[in-house]
Amino acid sequence: MQVKGKRIFMFVLMLVQCAFIVTFVLCVEYDNNAKPNIDKNLQGSESAQGKTPENGRVMQTYPSFQDVHVMIYIGFGFLMTFLKRYGYSAVSINLLLASFCAQWAIIVRAAISGNWTVGVMEMLTADFAAATILISFGAVLGKTGPLQLLIMACIEIVLAQVNEHIGVHILHTADVGESMFIHAFGAYFGLAVARVLYSEDIERASGKEGAVYHSDLFSMIGTVFLWLYWPSFNGGAVEGDQQHRAFVNTYLSLLACTVTTFIVSSLVDKRGKFDMVHIQNATLAGGVAVGTSAHMPIQPWGAMLLGTAAGIISVLGYKYLTPLMASKLRIHDTCGVNNLHGMPGILAAIGGAVAAAMSSKETWGNSLYSIFTAMEPTMMNTTMTTNAMTANVTEVMGRSAMEQGGYQMAALCLTLAIAIVGGVITGFILKIPFLDNPTGDLLFDDTDQWNVADEGFPNSGELPLNGKSGDGKSRDDTQIPML
Amino acid sequence: MQVKGKRIFMFVLMLVQCAFIVTFVLCVEYDNNAKPNIDKNLQGSESAQGKTPENGRVMQTYPSFQDVHVMIYIGFGFLMTFLKRYGYSAVSINLLLASFCAQWAIIVRAAISGNWTVGVMEMLTADFAAATILISFGAVLGKTGPLQLLIMACIEIVLAQVNEHIGVHILHTADVGESMFIHAFGAYFGLAVARVLYSEDIERASGKEGAVYHSDLFSMIGTVFLWLYWPSFNGGAVEGDQQHRAFVNTYLSLLACTVTTFIVSSLVDKRGKFDMVHIQNATLAGGVAVGTSAHMPIQPWGAMLLGTAAGIISVLGYKYLTPLMASKLRIHDTCGVNNLHGMPGILAAIGGAVAAAMSSKETWGNSLYSIFTAMEPTMMNTTMTTNAMTANVTEVMGRSAMEQGGYQMAALCLTLAIAIVGGVITGFILKIPFLDNPTGDLLFDDTDQWNVADEGFPNSGELPLNGKSGDGKSRDDTQIPML
Amino acid sequence: MQVKGKRIFMFVLMLVQCAFIVTFVLCVEYDNNAKPNIDKNLQGSESAQGKTPENGRVMQTYPSFQDVHVMIYIGFGFLMTFLKRYGYSAVSINLLLASFCAQWAIIVRAAISGNWTVGVMEMLTADFAAATILISFGAVLGKTGPLQLLIMACIEIVLAQVNEHIGVHILHTADVGESMFIHAFGAYFGLAVARVLYSEDIERASGKEGAVYHSDLFSMIGTVFLWLYWPSFNGGAVEGDQQHRAFVNTYLSLLACTVTTFIVSSLVDKRGKFDMVHIQNATLAGGVAVGTSAHMPIQPWGAMLLGTAAGIISVLGYKYLTPLMASKLRIHDTCGVNNLHGMPGILAAIGGAVAAAMSSKETWGNSLYSIFTAMEPTMMNTTMTTNAMTANVTEVMGRSAMEQGGYQMAALCLTLAIAIVGGVITGFILKIPFLDNPTGDLLFDDTDQWNVADEGFPNSGELPLNGKSGDGKSRDDTQIPML
Repeated sequence: MQVKGKRIFMFVLMLVQCAFIVTFVLCVEYDNNAKPNIDKNLQGSESAQGKTPENGRVMQTYPSFQDVHVMIYIGFGFLMTFLKRYGYSAVSINLLLASFCAQWAIIVRAAISGNWTVGVMEMLTADFAAATILISFGAVLGKTGPLQLLIMACIEIVLAQVNEHIGVHILHTADVGESMFIHAFGAYFGLAVARVLYSEDIERASGKEGAVYHSDLFSMIGTVFLWLYWPSFNGGAVEGDQQHRAFVNTYLSLLACTVTTFIVSSLVDKRGKFDMVHIQNATLAGGVAVGTSAHMPIQPWGAMLLGTAAGIISVLGYKYLTPLMASKLRIHDTCGVNNLHGMPGILAAIGGAVAAAMSSKETWGNSLYSIFTAMEPTMMNTTMTTNAMTANVTEVMGRSAMEQGGYQMAALCLTLAIAIVGGVITGFILKIPFLDNPTGDLLFDDTDQWNVADEGFPNSGELPLNGKSGDGKSRDDTQIPML
Repeated sequence: MQVKGKRIFMFVLMLVQCAFIVTFVLCVEYDNNAKPNIDKNLQGSESAQGKTPENGRVMQTYPSFQDVHVMIYIGFGFLMTFLKRYGYSAVSINLLLASFCAQWAIIVRAAISGNWTVGVMEMLTADFAAATILISFGAVLGKTGPLQLLIMACIEIVLAQVNEHIGVHILHTADVGESMFIHAFGAYFGLAVARVLYSEDIERASGKEGAVYHSDLFSMIGTVFLWLYWPSFNGGAVEGDQQHRAFVNTYLSLLACTVTTFIVSSLVDKRGKFDMVHIQNATLAGGVAVGTSAHMPIQPWGAMLLGTAAGIISVLGYKYLTPLMASKLRIHDTCGVNNLHGMPGILAAIGGAVAAAMSSKETWGNSLYSIFTAMEPTMMNTTMTTNAMTANVTEVMGRSAMEQGGYQMAALCLTLAIAIVGGVITGFILKIPFLDNPTGDLLFDDTDQWNVADEGFPNSGELPLNGKSGDGKSRDDTQIPML
Repeated sequence: MQVKGKRIFMFVLMLVQCAFIVTFVLCVEYDNNAKPNIDKNLQGSESAQGKTPENGRVMQTYPSFQDVHVMIYIGFGFLMTFLKRYGYSAVSINLLLASFCAQWAIIVRAAISGNWTVGVMEMLTADFAAATILISFGAVLGKTGPLQLLIMACIEIVLAQVNEHIGVHILHTADVGESMFIHAFGAYFGLAVARVLYSEDIERASGKEGAVYHSDLFSMIGTVFLWLYWPSFNGGAVEGDQQHRAFVNTYLSLLACTVTTFIVSSLVDKRGKFDMVHIQNATLAGGVAVGTSAHMPIQPWGAMLLGTAAGIISVLGYKYLTPLMASKLRIHDTCGVNNLHGMPGILAAIGGAVAAAMSSKETWGNSLYSIFTAMEPTMMNTTMTTNAMTANVTEVMGRSAMEQGGYQMAALCLTLAIAIVGGVITGFILKIPFLDNPTGDLLFDDTDQWNVADEGFPNSGELPLNGKSGDGKSRDDTQIPML
């Protein structure tokens, strides 16, 4: 039965991967800048080598893409290795899920936009899309099998991309680091799934949920790389002074958030000690919290305040809210994504809405219309540029600042609605029995999916778990079964 | 005697390093773009600060160089830390070997090309050259002493660079990610050396060849960084649309390869479980398999098919071929380089040859002649550019597409021939007794070369090796024989 | 009392962080290139998107900034995880300290220069400034509490920035990789603090100072990332051919230094074995040693000689000088910063002075005046550019080469003086009792500041330490007391 579940997983994954390739054969071609020059007659010149100004711009995105790439595969992957017996799955299933999602996201995004090409920009947005699913993965880490994750990814990618499309192209909202469309969406989708999948077994397996000393250090590799490259995440998709501000704001927000995290972590401990869980996670909340407004001229101190608030919220969430949600709401959040991505994502959305509502042509200059395209005076589309223009502008203005702020909040509400409803439905789908939902001993444990190294798990001498052979014989008190 | 071997190593290394410096003193100068401006009279201007367009181009290579740099020293270094008792050597000897090879490669390449300068481009090609030796290192990991590796590196760098020079400048073949000249060469050279060095001791030491839980996670650091930066490896040395395609093709190939690896890894296990060895290695085969044709317009789906095929070949190789080669052919391949670099390298070469054979001016445009320089119509070198040109082109065309495909295959055959013959000869040289070939207890074990931390190796309490308590304290007194 | 100390720390940190934010509110604004374009009327054009040539130049610094960013937070952070029971603190307090210092450095540097803006360049220099304190942190690692480190950072940032300002803007010296102003300063400041804080307890706790097998591998993550990105550290702040030379020189110096480190490490061991401490640290000394002169045309072999010398000095320092300093001078240097940053920093300064003294317009061309601005003929400031100019130049020359060399040495002496005097004074301040100086069992031990994972420290079964509860219950044989 167990093996059968794995064979089903394998078969479904094979089928879907084949479908991906067929879709690529039928529909996807290179970005224009990645195509060979067919029509030009000149040879041996600059143009023959494909070095156009447009290509130069595309290539400028590549270093930012690589930074984000490290965040997705090293950052998320290692951040989740903190569990003492789930490290293989954390980093490897992260790799599988992200690779799967990136292909699916390229297809879904192309279907939505109608632009069936792939280039460096699509590589960046595919990595962004994968991040959404990896955040949800954090909420259900250790409690779902690969087939469940696969199905979750298939559904979530579509919903998240539709939500983003509505937010950006219909509501015309700004969310440069996608704190709403990626972080809040991924967190609340994952939490909704986790709520539906909740079982008593999870509570009983809590002995396996902790870290060992070195698994905490592996996790810090993920933390620090996420922390380092977050400015590229928030600024990678824009240019010019918007990008420059996104870099500066994100950097400052993270600095303030990190110091705040240490303060609050010490404050909430009765002996004044720090907690590695807070350091591993809450230090990053500053990157999320500034994600919507990073490219706006919110001032350096504005970014620092957002980071400070995020650090406070996040540590308090880990300390008080996560246990409460598990016991009262029966929402078990393995990585605490509510504290790292959820609440800071909402904070980011509110920050963006407030910034939008307070924006003006006087203080934001031309950046105003390139950030909030719907605020641009509609007459600018005409060719009239007489002296009377300045007077006209107010007259035929598009959205007002307050309206834009309202739309920003609307995008947040829509995001939360789609994420939660979508997550609940997905959760029920994942409960279909043949999907092989891990239970009992298989929770938070690599032995279900992996051939673990002969010597078993590190430092496991005192784990009061069952004495299953094969996963290390190091249990002294194997007589005490888990239940 | 033992110590004597180490003194000889030290002395030889010192001598060679001195020879390197003397060669640099006598022959090597800065790249033109790294030289100070002597002849220009203007001061304080752009030019005085050395900002020429040419310099800008050189500097664009630097981020790609850094990506490749991470692959060589973090990627290869940590990938090989999977052995439970050989982690110090894996990451440190990797650092030593690569540093040594980079210097030697600069000299050898300069001697071959006659261009005795060093700049960012030479840093990139030196790192590439080092990769060849690190691949061979993977085949003999744990079974060779530092002096042996040093001698292997000295010989292999020369052969690999000569082979690459013939392939690129005489056979005029394309191999943008050097899947033939680096991956296939390094793998089969290393396997030939491993064959000659084979001994019964190696089989007996198989208990030490495994991983412990955390050494597998260290190894994943190497895997993921190699995986992430592989597009820079395949595209770092080209520009414009060729570079853009190399990035896209490599990215897509790796995505498809990764998903395929998980499928096949589960498929070949009787309980349907994944195997960390496959995830650590086979996921990367997609980067190798697309290496020859990454800059060609093979279409996105073409890259994905290459990646899929590579994933299948690689996992099957680890599962079935590697044990078979060890038992039947007496080729012991510690890291399975045949599966990660060897067979995928051959696949890449075949893919490149097929792409070349199917190439045409109509579909490849001007990229055709910049990729396959030998296909360029020879008359283009004349100054004649009349209306009659189009008609002439077919007449005085250089190589045909089929011919180019044949040359690509010829380059592969030459590569395999030089690698295998060179490797066998090198293997016999390495058997000279005073080179201190590790045997028995010293195989796959850091204690031979390192002062290991007091507490010894992790999780080693139950290792069915010699019965020494603690098994730290670096066995001076190996009175208990291994068997 | 213990908890009280932690509450004081928390309170002070909160106060200072609030002061930082208030300062930012009152004084700090965006860099000009990160500001929105207010005054320009054009919309939708290049300029409206903020893409000016100046902005392009700023953005070129971003990849170098990210490389340095990795060095500061991954490099320094993981390098210090080698201690078996101090890994949480190493990587986390590194993150806290650097985040704190970066904000403080932005403020201090703005106060000194009068330019209260923040952009990518300020992010780079803030990271540089943080490096100084992290080097000092290495000298006192495991022997200081967070509050002590905080106070040390507050003082040291000011002194280091004043020293750098004098060196660059008053003495007009060149130190492109800041080997004097960062490495030598940080090392000798830290050593002076360590001297004052010395106690007998430290010697008694030496059993905890070692590494375990895997903590050594974590440390190598730091080592290799520092090693890889060092060219960006030395060349990140300059442009054009100076930057190109800085990359090449640093790369070559590190290659030679690495090979030398292995040679000398084997040479000084009576059994010819390598020592991980040497590999983790001395391999990096080449980056420090070339730091002052990396952008000067010292020739490739000049860089290699500096690297070779640094490797020799550094390994010999670890082997002989560090124990001697501890026993004779009562200077306990946890990470051996004297060997990695101190002596190689002095070597770098001397190298830079010699290069300056031997520089000339003939061989350095226009680079001479852009590197050594004080050597520029003063008449160049006038508008006279007649034919007679060439004759005049020698007449009204600024500093001679020998003078410049002298000034370089003066900058070194001043650096050492400020660092040592400042460090001693700081050390005495840190001895104020309520600052919670760790003693006895709390030395080199995370349990003082952290809630350590339930299973305690790895491989600790055989540690002959005291059986204190709370630091992991994993000691079976707690009957053996520490002394």
